[in-house]
Amino acid sequence: MALGKITEPERPYTRRAFSPLFAAGRDWLAERMRAAGLATRVDAAGNLIGRREGRAPSRPVIMLGSHSDSVPSGGRFDGMAGVAAGIAVARALAQAPLEHPLEVIDFLAEEPNEFGLSCIGSRALSGCLSADHLALSNSQGETLSDALRRVGGVPERIGAARRSDIKAALELHIEQGPVLESRGIDIGLVSAIAGVTRLELEFKGAAGHAGTTPMQGRRDPLIAAAHMIGWIRTRALELAGRGCGHFVATVGIVEALPGGSNVIPASARIVIDARSEDRRLMEEFQASVEAQSAAAARAASVERSRLAVLSDNLPAACDGQLRELLGRCAKLCGLSTLSMASGAGHDTAFLSRVAPAAMLFIPCKDGRSHTPEEWASPAAVAAGTSVLLEAVRALDADRDSTRCPES
Amino acid sequence: MALGKITEPERPYTRRAFSPLFAAGRDWLAERMRAAGLATRVDAAGNLIGRREGRAPSRPVIMLGSHSDSVPSGGRFDGMAGVAAGIAVARALAQAPLEHPLEVIDFLAEEPNEFGLSCIGSRALSGCLSADHLALSNSQGETLSDALRRVGGVPERIGAARRSDIKAALELHIEQGPVLESRGIDIGLVSAIAGVTRLELEFKGAAGHAGTTPMQGRRDPLIAAAHMIGWIRTRALELAGRGCGHFVATVGIVEALPGGSNVIPASARIVIDARSEDRRLMEEFQASVEAQSAAAARAASVERSRLAVLSDNLPAACDGQLRELLGRCAKLCGLSTLSMASGAGHDTAFLSRVAPAAMLFIPCKDGRSHTPEEWASPAAVAAGTSVLLEAVRALDADRDSTRCPES
Repeated sequence: MALGKITEPERPYTRRAFSPLFAAGRDWLAERMRAAGLATRVDAAGNLIGRREGRAPSRPVIMLGSHSDSVPSGGRFDGMAGVAAGIAVARALAQAPLEHPLEVIDFLAEEPNEFGLSCIGSRALSGCLSADHLALSNSQGETLSDALRRVGGVPERIGAARRSDIKAALELHIEQGPVLESRGIDIGLVSAIAGVTRLELEFKGAAGHAGTTPMQGRRDPLIAAAHMIGWIRTRALELAGRGCGHFVATVGIVEALPGGSNVIPASARIVIDARSEDRRLMEEFQASVEAQSAAAARAASVERSRLAVLSDNLPAACDGQLRELLGRCAKLCGLSTLSMASGAGHDTAFLSRVAPAAMLFIPCKDGRSHTPEEWASPAAVAAGTSVLLEAVRALDADRDSTRCPES
Repeated sequence: MALGKITEPERPYTRRAFSPLFAAGRDWLAERMRAAGLATRVDAAGNLIGRREGRAPSRPVIMLGSHSDSVPSGGRFDGMAGVAAGIAVARALAQAPLEHPLEVIDFLAEEPNEFGLSCIGSRALSGCLSADHLALSNSQGETLSDALRRVGGVPERIGAARRSDIKAALELHIEQGPVLESRGIDIGLVSAIAGVTRLELEFKGAAGHAGTTPMQGRRDPLIAAAHMIGWIRTRALELAGRGCGHFVATVGIVEALPGGSNVIPASARIVIDARSEDRRLMEEFQASVEAQSAAAARAASVERSRLAVLSDNLPAACDGQLRELLGRCAKLCGLSTLSMASGAGHDTAFLSRVAPAAMLFIPCKDGRSHTPEEWASPAAVAAGTSVLLEAVRALDADRDSTRCPES
């Protein structure tokens, strides 16, 4: 709640990555990290890290965290709940001896930002931030490289941010969906973070006067686009019912040009956002969009002028043993659990490339997120944090430096 | 072509009503009218009128004309062809005695303009321009009343523009559609000017994260809107096939909000433009949109938050005897004809309220209009003009001052 007050006053809650408010938020966060006994630093990729050393030499790191940046007019929990939970765990353990180093991390720029690239900090941590990425620029012409420098990063040494010393990375996050709340479940154990594939589909026809062009012989591209909108929902419902885990597909953008009430559109465009934890479902979906959109164009006597893959991220499975550990810890705390996929992207998807990584979800009110009304009860945040605390204790007690403790 | 040169140079052909270029165009037109032996004046409604008196006293007027204003980046024929044809007829008859007065008119502001009101001059001529209309203002805060004054009108005497002395009003216009060209017909005899009904339909559902909201239980308003887009086409095809004349319906505007690729829309809106020369078809269409949109909302578990009639103009039939006269004149000129409705609105729709009025169409290239590529061949314009000339001769020879000459 205190960090929530660091916001653009006219549109709470806004604390976008690289902004002065973002820096002010991090100053406050670093202070809270130090108060919890952590030494703070910013790594080469601009991640804020609070760390305490372990008693045993050369042990790998137990890492907790999420991100403190927000979307415009976002909430106070998406990201921040996971950073706050990490700091709370560090504070709870401040007087307790730990064998392993403990790090609480605020990943840089998880949300969509002015550089059009999300998960910047976690990408770098997993060695996935390329020179091309660093050359991206915002609308003011500033490069990501220069922006990184402003937040304390060292772009010319970006490789130094890559980690290979992590024993386990755990991220607490609000669900951002309605499942846990509607079923009365305390903790979601994330099986995988869905891959996101974005497709852009455009049809071109023949513009014409809406009054003088007879219905017969029209070549209206919006007819094909409208057909696809309905078809995509039907197809997604079918794939979601297959029993192969989470599948959703959404058309959130539709545009008909020139966009006059008395003009038959010359072109119509939709953007499809599809997500699956099973890559085979996604490939099947893509192939069927390809075939169906060609058929829709033929039926409407228009041209399918564009079918482009705007982005295509693979699903990332969470570490099975870590997930089981989180389940045991939840049981220890008397909390109910549900295994579920994450439909939203998270830093953990990148972390899972270089470390055993897992996520736990807590319920949020009405499943809402990316809005000022976003809310998770103090009890829900505390419950999730207690699971993290138990997990850190168990991980620290484990002798095997590379694997999770067995049950 | 000469008038086409009076245009905004960066976006030919643009000569919007009330603009300095519009005034310059009219100066040129008035000069051409005077050269054709017409005395020019601007009436209280800002219509430019060129007139020669008839030899017989107190005979009603034979009126020819259309409009000289354009849409932004419009063409050189929509409107202007009809004014130029009128001037050509006057010139051809300059040395011939006429019993009736002959007027060539350039109606003020037929096209959509900054006051959001089309057919301003012809509305006033038929007594349909109200005080509310005169109080409309543009984005600079100027009222239509003040703008009228700028072009020579006298808003406080707007009633004086109403006419009851017209024997026959004839308007030549490009078809603005593909029918005549595709069938190789010279002249379209307009049966009626279709009524235009614009409906706005909005659905509201529940916005949600495109990744985290399961397909089951979604309340996506774009699904209902997309269904309606396809259904409207199917329904319009059916009504157009009834044999009750012209019927078309078009969705040219579609909007989903908030319009993010990763957000299930909270609302979706479409604007429907429907046109019919038979009011019963339009009423049937409206009733079925009402029923179908309610059903679509139920099927998608969303709310039909708005079904508004944005505008609703009745169809206007052209005078049957005048239309027959035009047909006979075309035959006399060796030209083929087709009876057809006008899907677009025209000044003649207003004229028909106070006078026998009719229209003839000439083919235009690819049916295109409201674009710089708009084109009608010199031969097509000349053919239509020759029909007008024959019609004026026949009308002038007619003794009955109120009705058309019988065949």
